[in-house]
Amino acid sequence: MLQELKKRVLEEYGIQFQDEKYLIEAMTHSSYSNEHKEMNGVYNERIEFLGDAVLELFVSRWLFLHFPKMKEGELSRLRAQIVCEKSFALLAKECRLDQFVLLGKGEEAMGGRQRPALLCDLFEAFVGAIYLDKGFDEVSQFLEKVVASKIQDGKFLLNQDYKTDLQEELQKQGSVKIEYIVNKEIGPSHDKEFYVSVLLEGQVLANGVGRSKKAAEQEAAKIALEQLAKK
Amino acid sequence: MLQELKKRVLEEYGIQFQDEKYLIEAMTHSSYSNEHKEMNGVYNERIEFLGDAVLELFVSRWLFLHFPKMKEGELSRLRAQIVCEKSFALLAKECRLDQFVLLGKGEEAMGGRQRPALLCDLFEAFVGAIYLDKGFDEVSQFLEKVVASKIQDGKFLLNQDYKTDLQEELQKQGSVKIEYIVNKEIGPSHDKEFYVSVLLEGQVLANGVGRSKKAAEQEAAKIALEQLAKK
Repeated sequence: MLQELKKRVLEEYGIQFQDEKYLIEAMTHSSYSNEHKEMNGVYNERIEFLGDAVLELFVSRWLFLHFPKMKEGELSRLRAQIVCEKSFALLAKECRLDQFVLLGKGEEAMGGRQRPALLCDLFEAFVGAIYLDKGFDEVSQFLEKVVASKIQDGKFLLNQDYKTDLQEELQKQGSVKIEYIVNKEIGPSHDKEFYVSVLLEGQVLANGVGRSKKAAEQEAAKIALEQLAKK
Repeated sequence: MLQELKKRVLEEYGIQFQDEKYLIEAMTHSSYSNEHKEMNGVYNERIEFLGDAVLELFVSRWLFLHFPKMKEGELSRLRAQIVCEKSFALLAKECRLDQFVLLGKGEEAMGGRQRPALLCDLFEAFVGAIYLDKGFDEVSQFLEKVVASKIQDGKFLLNQDYKTDLQEELQKQGSVKIEYIVNKEIGPSHDKEFYVSVLLEGQVLANGVGRSKKAAEQEAAKIALEQLAKK
């Protein structure tokens, strides 16, 4: 089974593991290790601790380089939207790691193979294994393929439809006028940033920045919702 | 002044910056940028955002590799003790970055050059600049020299004297017997882990792990204090 995963990883991402040890560790859930004495207490939480930090740095660098005008507060907010359970659980399934993780009987019976928290940890552990075996440059190339393309599309930033949520919130007391306007666009066509405001009855509620008009609108709606929640 | 810093960094750490741009960014506090229009709004918060993630990964890897038996929870606790304002403010001074940071007049007058939060951000920004100019391997070599040696000594883990604090706490109601015992030592002499328990009147209060007996005792005392605080 591990051979199958190694073959897939080589074919799809061009990664050839030198040492299987870290890959085995990454694919072993604690529930499996508890049931199998021959694992010597090895399971993927330690390597997940490391993979988490690799992802944090990769995403930080990507955002830093791709949003040269964005302030630190906005970079942090964007990073938190990307580095989260929902995104990484999705990536674990895309890399089909859910098919390869070793689970204990109880965890399997409880549907652990589909559990977002487990899948998120699994993706982080997998990234940790590539990093330990190959170093930061090679794991970055892998993440460029599987993570960066999604950030670019705004996929991770649109996990939730904040525009619809905001509309529902504002129209609780009846019909109101909500508009989104683009204030400016910065950068060349392949590398744009959009600055958008959301207005309620002509008054600015909040501003958002994004790689696409849609992403910037979602961001503005999200901030408006946060502000409303504080009132 | 920047030339002097570049010279120092080359002589002491063997780092030759290709591009000064990131170093200037790292050494510029927002208060200076606000007062100097020619900075075009550039200051060190964005690069600090990145340096923070570099330090997180470096320390995570170091702990992962040096404590092969330590569980994820303990690794996280250790990391939080190292990746903190106090440690990085100390390192900023050791690298003499406080002498080179560009501050606005107000910040200077308020003693900003000695402010731990400012110095911590400065060290993170400096690490970010080395990373951007030189990549992860070279910044790791620098951190190996300035950070890792301190973790090894237990310096970052002993910022506070928990043993004394615990003694004071336990002896509030009068004299009691407090003992520290080493339960086991793991690993070769250059790479040991000590497992220590702290006992009150012969009963185990808490356990600690560390690179030295002293560090493990401090760790045990710290955990005992946390448990007492919850009661």
